[in-house]
Amino acid sequence: MQTPWIERFAQRTQRMRSSAVRELLKLTEQPDVISFAGGLPAPDVFPVDQFQESTCRLLKDHGTKALQYGTTEGYRPLREMIARHSSRYGIVIEPENVLITSGSQQALDLIGKVFINPGDHLVVERPTYLGALQAWNAYQSEYINVPMDDEGIRPDELEAALRKGPKFIYALPNFQNPTGVTLSLGRRHELIRLADHYGVPIIEDDPYGQLRYEGEHIPSLVAIDAQERSHDGAPYTGNIIYLSTFSKTLAPGLRLAWIVAPAEVIQKLVQAKQGADLHTSTFGQMLAYDVAHGGFLDQHIKVIRAVYGARRDAMLAALDRHFPPEVTWTRPQGGLFLWVTFPEDIDAADLLKVAVQDQKVAFVPGTSFFADGSVHNTARFNFSYCNEQTIEEGIGRLGIALRRFMATRPTAVAR
Amino acid sequence: MQTPWIERFAQRTQRMRSSAVRELLKLTEQPDVISFAGGLPAPDVFPVDQFQESTCRLLKDHGTKALQYGTTEGYRPLREMIARHSSRYGIVIEPENVLITSGSQQALDLIGKVFINPGDHLVVERPTYLGALQAWNAYQSEYINVPMDDEGIRPDELEAALRKGPKFIYALPNFQNPTGVTLSLGRRHELIRLADHYGVPIIEDDPYGQLRYEGEHIPSLVAIDAQERSHDGAPYTGNIIYLSTFSKTLAPGLRLAWIVAPAEVIQKLVQAKQGADLHTSTFGQMLAYDVAHGGFLDQHIKVIRAVYGARRDAMLAALDRHFPPEVTWTRPQGGLFLWVTFPEDIDAADLLKVAVQDQKVAFVPGTSFFADGSVHNTARFNFSYCNEQTIEEGIGRLGIALRRFMATRPTAVAR
Repeated sequence: MQTPWIERFAQRTQRMRSSAVRELLKLTEQPDVISFAGGLPAPDVFPVDQFQESTCRLLKDHGTKALQYGTTEGYRPLREMIARHSSRYGIVIEPENVLITSGSQQALDLIGKVFINPGDHLVVERPTYLGALQAWNAYQSEYINVPMDDEGIRPDELEAALRKGPKFIYALPNFQNPTGVTLSLGRRHELIRLADHYGVPIIEDDPYGQLRYEGEHIPSLVAIDAQERSHDGAPYTGNIIYLSTFSKTLAPGLRLAWIVAPAEVIQKLVQAKQGADLHTSTFGQMLAYDVAHGGFLDQHIKVIRAVYGARRDAMLAALDRHFPPEVTWTRPQGGLFLWVTFPEDIDAADLLKVAVQDQKVAFVPGTSFFADGSVHNTARFNFSYCNEQTIEEGIGRLGIALRRFMATRPTAVAR
Repeated sequence: MQTPWIERFAQRTQRMRSSAVRELLKLTEQPDVISFAGGLPAPDVFPVDQFQESTCRLLKDHGTKALQYGTTEGYRPLREMIARHSSRYGIVIEPENVLITSGSQQALDLIGKVFINPGDHLVVERPTYLGALQAWNAYQSEYINVPMDDEGIRPDELEAALRKGPKFIYALPNFQNPTGVTLSLGRRHELIRLADHYGVPIIEDDPYGQLRYEGEHIPSLVAIDAQERSHDGAPYTGNIIYLSTFSKTLAPGLRLAWIVAPAEVIQKLVQAKQGADLHTSTFGQMLAYDVAHGGFLDQHIKVIRAVYGARRDAMLAALDRHFPPEVTWTRPQGGLFLWVTFPEDIDAADLLKVAVQDQKVAFVPGTSFFADGSVHNTARFNFSYCNEQTIEEGIGRLGIALRRFMATRPTAVAR
């Protein structure tokens, strides 16, 4: 330790733990490990040909612009495209309501930078997306965990949480990461009503909204709120900050996402982004626009839905076949993940070690998704990355690891 | 104002003022304005052909990898290239000492996130880079301003500042933004000695180090420190965090920069970056690597030096011709900027308004570069963006605006 000043000066990092998911990703990068751990889109659905066509055109026609500095708000045609797209869902917005971010992770960070003072309380679902916890821990936030059931966050518990005066509510209404649970339409109205009543803004994180494989589309919170407030087609001024991304529909490697919010909120976030990274890659934004506009993205999303829908079905069927009856799991209507609950005395982190070592298969233990670090018998399984055959093989192997693990646990021996 | 919660909840932004430079850039985007305001590289030196060649190859050979998520630390071949490049300057480092960031602006933000607690004092040059102030204001830092002269930051004043117990020293030793001043070799040794004595780390920001147009290369602080500490070729463990970027040598639109620091520091910064944007664009990193490696970047930097050197000469000559003798300016040996000092009763912000309105020419008033907001009679002129002819025309117009402005000021009338 020749640099003692590091520990002395970096107190703020004490609450920033390295992401369990990302550390695990490193462990499971060996090619013979079947990984249900990451949140990776399937590379086989990346539209590589369209990207190739677009980059060639872009550099030929607008090369110097694509390589130059851009505005903090983002590439205007891309913001206009997002505004137009939102209007299809009844959300009247202008480009001034849209900020392009370097992935949704940056949107979460900017929201933390603008809104969170040390000690502020945030309402989160229990469990919730660990990337959000990671972004906001850096701003020394505290959490009020509100339980979920099959219809999402529970309004009775939410009201008690709102009485404590939180800074905002963080919600993932569609195919939640990590549980895959979708907030019902009734609960969406109730959530908006309660937030309004207590004057608390909602951060609506919606990376998977377009990836629904069965059932009817349910309007986003911002769409419902925009409809209810709508007068004379004026741009949105409610209290929902909506996040979405191109990472799951186009390509995560570009790091491109966006925030929709009242123009005043966008202005604050733009100031924060100026200090955070000046702007998002001009080249990446122009490229995404070139690939996405003119209807290609809509068509491409249909392809993704078909591929991921089949993989979800394969995983559900494999779980039915290979997992013992004491284990339960969610049946998500979309998204990338499902959520497994083991018997209470099973520690999923211990199971993971055995699963990787003996059976070369990986998943994410659920504990990281609980802001209070509680609950050890759950796990998140990703079904988008591996193909059906690999899913069947991986769940089969996990079933073997799980049965052996359950047979050797102390309670099993005691029986 | 239908969203009153914004003001109530966004206290943290009160210290985040919108960057004067970026607001001005918007004003001066009209094509008939000659702008010396931005810090823009010249688009005519962007290696568009190489980018076109590289993107085609990259998407053909590694398309799915380029579009997929990557590691927070950055694309390993790019980190290896930077490590190799650093060793040419006597800095022994491994890829573990390198973190890829989304522009140097993000490096500044991550340093703030890891190191700054509210109320912490930072030592900055007076004036200093406003982007750094903007990044760190968000973390509620305070500043100790240390005056500069023609050789850079003054060691006598620095020692007094260090006695106040600052968190770190922020220095731009080469062709400083905004003044163009270079820290002399003797002062570099003195700065390192003092920082070491007081146990205070140095953030060395070096975006322009390779853009020298005359005089001898002076080793960076980290190179000097690495040489002095060197034993048995072990990787660097001193107390300097070094920042550099591809923005001025390759293309700013990619948002690609890097941090060199002891591995322990990099680990802390990686944790902060995980929460801030997960990772920098995989596509952008692989593209930059493909363009830069194998010697192309070295060759390309020679082209940039020739172009910018001629533009610097053109601006110095035009200033000699068109500016009145009461005005002085620096003669930088490299970089993108020079620094103009008007008579004390001239407010450069007022002059700017007249210059843009009457003469269609723009620059940045110096006030934004002073952490204490003092000093109103200075300005930063960029000489990299406009060609020689436009520089001559623009400085000529500014000369007219300036003489008129000086003739009509109260003191002039009173004479």
